Amino acid sequence: MTDRERDDAIVAELGEDALIGIFASEGGDGGDKRILVPNGDDAAAFMTSPGEATIVTTDALVESVHFDAASSPLRCVGRKLIAVNLSDIAAMGVRPRYALVSVAIPPSTPVRAVRQIAEGIHEQCAEHRTRVIGGNTARTYGPMVLTATLLGTAKAKRIVSRRGARPGDAVFVTGTLGDANGGLRLTRARSVPARSDPMFPLYSALVDPLPRVAAGRALSKSRLAHAMCDVSDGLGRDLRRLLSPVGLGARIAAGALPISEALRAFAARSGLSAEALALEGGEDYELLFTADPRSEHEIVEVLSRIATPVSRIGEVTRSPSIEVSAADGAVAALPQGFDHFGAEGSS
Amino acid sequence: MTDRERDDAIVAELGEDALIGIFASEGGDGGDKRILVPNGDDAAAFMTSPGEATIVTTDALVESVHFDAASSPLRCVGRKLIAVNLSDIAAMGVRPRYALVSVAIPPSTPVRAVRQIAEGIHEQCAEHRTRVIGGNTARTYGPMVLTATLLGTAKAKRIVSRRGARPGDAVFVTGTLGDANGGLRLTRARSVPARSDPMFPLYSALVDPLPRVAAGRALSKSRLAHAMCDVSDGLGRDLRRLLSPVGLGARIAAGALPISEALRAFAARSGLSAEALALEGGEDYELLFTADPRSEHEIVEVLSRIATPVSRIGEVTRSPSIEVSAADGAVAALPQGFDHFGAEGSS
Repeated sequence: MTDRERDDAIVAELGEDALIGIFASEGGDGGDKRILVPNGDDAAAFMTSPGEATIVTTDALVESVHFDAASSPLRCVGRKLIAVNLSDIAAMGVRPRYALVSVAIPPSTPVRAVRQIAEGIHEQCAEHRTRVIGGNTARTYGPMVLTATLLGTAKAKRIVSRRGARPGDAVFVTGTLGDANGGLRLTRARSVPARSDPMFPLYSALVDPLPRVAAGRALSKSRLAHAMCDVSDGLGRDLRRLLSPVGLGARIAAGALPISEALRAFAARSGLSAEALALEGGEDYELLFTADPRSEHEIVEVLSRIATPVSRIGEVTRSPSIEVSAADGAVAALPQGFDHFGAEGSS
Repeated sequence: MTDRERDDAIVAELGEDALIGIFASEGGDGGDKRILVPNGDDAAAFMTSPGEATIVTTDALVESVHFDAASSPLRCVGRKLIAVNLSDIAAMGVRPRYALVSVAIPPSTPVRAVRQIAEGIHEQCAEHRTRVIGGNTARTYGPMVLTATLLGTAKAKRIVSRRGARPGDAVFVTGTLGDANGGLRLTRARSVPARSDPMFPLYSALVDPLPRVAAGRALSKSRLAHAMCDVSDGLGRDLRRLLSPVGLGARIAAGALPISEALRAFAARSGLSAEALALEGGEDYELLFTADPRSEHEIVEVLSRIATPVSRIGEVTRSPSIEVSAADGAVAALPQGFDHFGAEGSS
């Protein structure tokens, strides 16, 4: 698109990455030597004194887009607001410390509902020793918009940015992929599984995701991860964001993708491919990182100590394409993943 | 209200301060010795290393509540989003450094409009040597919600909090009061004055307020201000927030209130009291501070060097009431000011 065509377009046609680019300051750190990690990573980081950095990120949940009061308990909405921000801080390998919460709420909202959201916020914060130190409340006459900012502090050298992958690195991911994707499909089909339902883990992954804070810190402390991000928009898109800026690509083995029993069961029941659901993903909030393949044993060891499953799913290539190889040897380009401004789901 | 009654209420009945209280963590700093300024000030502050602090604040603008695309150029909306946050940082006496911008935008929004908002954001940031280092974009199917987080760094001892007013202190305010109030009344009457119109400064104060960043820093450097905040919700409400927590009150002289020629003309034309408009205020974004009355000359001197007008408008009293004395000697309680969740304007 030319600049002129872009101006005449609407936001839905632009795509999320281009939209983010409009708001980012031009020229990265703009010559500010204190900026360690500018726009474009999971979180930004700047030096506060020699060797010491503050890390900051912001993320929002919008009613009817990211949550639906009919299918998601409001306490979980509050928990998730903090979790998605914690996930960004975790992806930098940093310990979260403080949160700010800015909410736009219709004046007709029951106070009870607001209290449930706040309870979820405080619960998630407490589980990660994070304090709410500020915020803002505004009224709106439309959908609720809940925005949180999360801050962490760390030794500058401990921060794991997205830039650092090397050709020949192995690609790892924590937990399982695609569960929230399955959960979204369940709730779209107006099916909220009971706690005893084998599908419940998919629903739970969607409405109450688990941020990998301890895993992020363990990978930073042990200096095992070369580059790291969280998987929030699908493996394909997030791998591309991790590797394209450094001119690299990856080949992922479909057979190595970590897939939960619940997702396998859901896929079988729905006549879908579990691998395709995992690759397409969206809102996984797992950590995706690259490391020396010789570190595999140590990585498994370090993460098992904090009960975090991890899978080696492929390797970093000099070729800039992001490909997936099937069991039969067929190789295909990985799907782009979730665009928050595109059509529903993947685009 | 009891807790039960409060839960059965809706947000509009609760009031903004109580709503903020629901989201704030209980117990102030919760025993975290790094927290210098917890919830409840213009911005929060925490130590990052001995003597060094990071200051952070967040504020939002909601379409149809804080701005109207029909009466406010979108570039000004972007400028104001940063300005209202800069004002909070200024009120701590701190230099702003970094911004994060989180926007919820309908997918049908023209890219041109988004670009205008972003231009305003970058313009205001550049004027105050502040860089956008992060952000988030989300879609919404309702009014735009624009949220910014602003960060500053400072020596911990340089931070001017709200807690520090002493009985006998003089009360000062920068600039003029009530202009944005006049501007709001003009735009509500569907009247957008031309640049050459004598009423234009009122409109300009509303849509493109001037954050007092240099004045805040000058007052901090010179150590002249004992306690400081910005006037965003009207003099009455903000004076109460400044003084009630330390058990003090104030007496303000109506005749000493700084009132612009434009507001005087508007008041005369509308059959309103300029003093009442100034007291009621709302969105003034001036700095309100207390200081030793013997410092008055030095304060005027320090602020005149950066071309910032300042007025001594009253004194801090041991009596906890906030009163205003008229020229004829009559004394009345100051209006409560603007509640963002109450009825339109003052409540």
